[in-house]
Amino acid sequence: MTPPTPSTPGTRLDPWFGAYAMRAHNMRASEVRALFAVVNRPEVVSLAGGMPYLEGLPLESIAASMERLIATHGTTALQYGSGQGHEALREQILEVMKLEGIDAHPDDVVVTTGSQQALDLVTRIFIDPGDVIVAEAPSYVGALGVFRSYQADVVHVPLDEHGLIPEALEETLTSLAAQGRRVKLLYTIPNFHNPAGVTLSLERRPRILEIARRHGVLVVEDNPYGLLGFGSEPLEAMRATDGDGVLYLGSFSKTFAPGFRVGWVVAPHAVREKLVLASESAILCPSNASQMAISTYLETSDWKAQIKAFQVLYRERRDAMVGALAEHMPDASWTVPDGGFYTWVRLPEGLDSKSMLPRAVTGRVAYVPGTAFFADGTGGDHMRLSYCFPTPDRIREGVRRLASVVNAERELVEIFGTTAHLDDVTDTDNPGPDLV
Amino acid sequence: MTPPTPSTPGTRLDPWFGAYAMRAHNMRASEVRALFAVVNRPEVVSLAGGMPYLEGLPLESIAASMERLIATHGTTALQYGSGQGHEALREQILEVMKLEGIDAHPDDVVVTTGSQQALDLVTRIFIDPGDVIVAEAPSYVGALGVFRSYQADVVHVPLDEHGLIPEALEETLTSLAAQGRRVKLLYTIPNFHNPAGVTLSLERRPRILEIARRHGVLVVEDNPYGLLGFGSEPLEAMRATDGDGVLYLGSFSKTFAPGFRVGWVVAPHAVREKLVLASESAILCPSNASQMAISTYLETSDWKAQIKAFQVLYRERRDAMVGALAEHMPDASWTVPDGGFYTWVRLPEGLDSKSMLPRAVTGRVAYVPGTAFFADGTGGDHMRLSYCFPTPDRIREGVRRLASVVNAERELVEIFGTTAHLDDVTDTDNPGPDLV
Repeated sequence: MTPPTPSTPGTRLDPWFGAYAMRAHNMRASEVRALFAVVNRPEVVSLAGGMPYLEGLPLESIAASMERLIATHGTTALQYGSGQGHEALREQILEVMKLEGIDAHPDDVVVTTGSQQALDLVTRIFIDPGDVIVAEAPSYVGALGVFRSYQADVVHVPLDEHGLIPEALEETLTSLAAQGRRVKLLYTIPNFHNPAGVTLSLERRPRILEIARRHGVLVVEDNPYGLLGFGSEPLEAMRATDGDGVLYLGSFSKTFAPGFRVGWVVAPHAVREKLVLASESAILCPSNASQMAISTYLETSDWKAQIKAFQVLYRERRDAMVGALAEHMPDASWTVPDGGFYTWVRLPEGLDSKSMLPRAVTGRVAYVPGTAFFADGTGGDHMRLSYCFPTPDRIREGVRRLASVVNAERELVEIFGTTAHLDDVTDTDNPGPDLV
Repeated sequence: MTPPTPSTPGTRLDPWFGAYAMRAHNMRASEVRALFAVVNRPEVVSLAGGMPYLEGLPLESIAASMERLIATHGTTALQYGSGQGHEALREQILEVMKLEGIDAHPDDVVVTTGSQQALDLVTRIFIDPGDVIVAEAPSYVGALGVFRSYQADVVHVPLDEHGLIPEALEETLTSLAAQGRRVKLLYTIPNFHNPAGVTLSLERRPRILEIARRHGVLVVEDNPYGLLGFGSEPLEAMRATDGDGVLYLGSFSKTFAPGFRVGWVVAPHAVREKLVLASESAILCPSNASQMAISTYLETSDWKAQIKAFQVLYRERRDAMVGALAEHMPDASWTVPDGGFYTWVRLPEGLDSKSMLPRAVTGRVAYVPGTAFFADGTGGDHMRLSYCFPTPDRIREGVRRLASVVNAERELVEIFGTTAHLDDVTDTDNPGPDLV
């Protein structure tokens, strides 16, 4: 067997084409990615991204506390740290999770480089090629990308306005068991779902846990938005009632700031040990500077008041979004989220969000096509609209533009019967960090 | 096929034992790890870790520039960023690499969460289970851990005082080809090798590159220490003369500070695209706050003067180390590094660095046993001593204590013929971030 050489056939453009691992063939840039290169231009209203609105943060005071941190604890903040994460921060994370009824120990927490790294580590330690991960239909594009990169098979289970449907989960797991498939994980976003905007009802939570337990499936509870509800108190996390069967993923990216890249995972003891080893292999240790910056913020700021301010801000934007949808796109339908960043819009009959996207970008508005949120390429009848980053006025303007694009598209459909389709590469191919 | 359940046999302690991926079975804590939990106690002189000495940094001015950064660019620094890395920083990285003769484009650079993440990503995109990675004997423990976690087979090639031996590399690659083995990567640390303390001569560099090219093997040039030489100008990097056949890994961890977790990889175009996709899957994007902090440091500080100051500091410590070895351990032999953090010590005949370690820690001195740096469990006749972190006085005291331990050990060997051995788990099992 001859090893590949730069002169071996493969592609002229990539002399190492023949040398990649199998899993690398599952890593592809999404076809919508090129379009998103332009959505950050000021003339485009982007309803695509999941970037939090940071202008509400007390930047002056964060800046001053960063200075004190480096000046007084610089030799720690700038040094290597623990693979599991900074202990003081892990203790503070317990305080954050208490708001959702989670009672844990600092040893149960592994700090990660954003919760994306937690997804990567969990998939790394559990998934062999061909293993099944069950996820909602639709599901978070960044998770689907990780699952694909480890060659998992994602099987979707429907959700409705109360979240993942227990009966459908039961049926899916029973059917997969009958096929002899190995189901390792149930990946779920119970609160203010990305992209669906729905929340798993409290009544369903114990039922989902019971079904997963009975089928021997570990639940991955991904909860970046749980504290960003617009109504009453935070809902009790699934992890709060099941310490052995749930891996809980949290993040400071939406409730504080994503630029430090700090998330965490809470795991049963033995799993946690594997996660720490996997994380050390991946990055040695998370950034002490980032972790101590967040620890300082939690210690010196009224972070709960900041979260309440974000709730008010995002609620106003959600109202702007659903108000504009009612005014300008009465033939579409959408979810009305009780928190979080996203609404999930069903387009009028016959339209395809993926083929329409280039025309939307030309019309100076961007969204994420529904196809991004399904492992099987379906979802073209939906789109995700995010209201987190643009101001209410920009949101209204964006929806106005979107309505024009939709109306023009309907005329096309009426004349030609269908619209042009982009090729059929699924959009869970990596769309880049703009679409979180 | 029944999926594993919490009640399925496996281990009582880990209900998910049966659910792990194959690769997770290769993730184990090193048996020396428990010992290292105590080496950070003040009474122990640790000659084990690779932590840079940060007290030499201008912390006040770094603190002030962090404050300005957050106050004036906070909404960027605290936001999501590009998967490939902050563009201004990638341009500055080119200036750093110019010191080693590398002429590249900002598009060629991928910023990573420390160069450990670069190692992880490179292994992820190239290695299928059973693929071969050729590495020096000895090699960096953190790289061996990553390689193992992706189920690579590491084949060692000897080095001498001039670095990796070209004839031995040729012979090994020829022999592996004859066995039909798939060799994907040559992993090498040309400058101030960790742990061997030697440097690949300029004369050998083109020969190594030619051999790798002829065998179709991609060279991974890991160079965290290249600017920390004690003598003349930095040596020309292998990447400087071979843009298609070399992946170059750089880091700010040793020349500035590891706490921001910023490293980088320079790769041929098509490989770079895969690396960006893999990194986005792993962490979405590296920390903007960390990258901009380093960018600000490079822009506002005399970073070249700081590196020169580190060279003087570490040279003094190297002198303290080799002076103390000559005085107290005349029966051992060691390399005298021209830069970097480490010397590689051969113990007097009959001693085993791994079995001696518990007694050394009892004697209040720590080192890393040579076995950590070999994939095959050999290397017990060597140990790595690092002189980067302790002051010269502490280094001398540490070597004095080590000499006492060695002398006591020799008496044991003379009486009993051998010393007790720990079990034979290899030390490339994850030893934790303390041993970088």
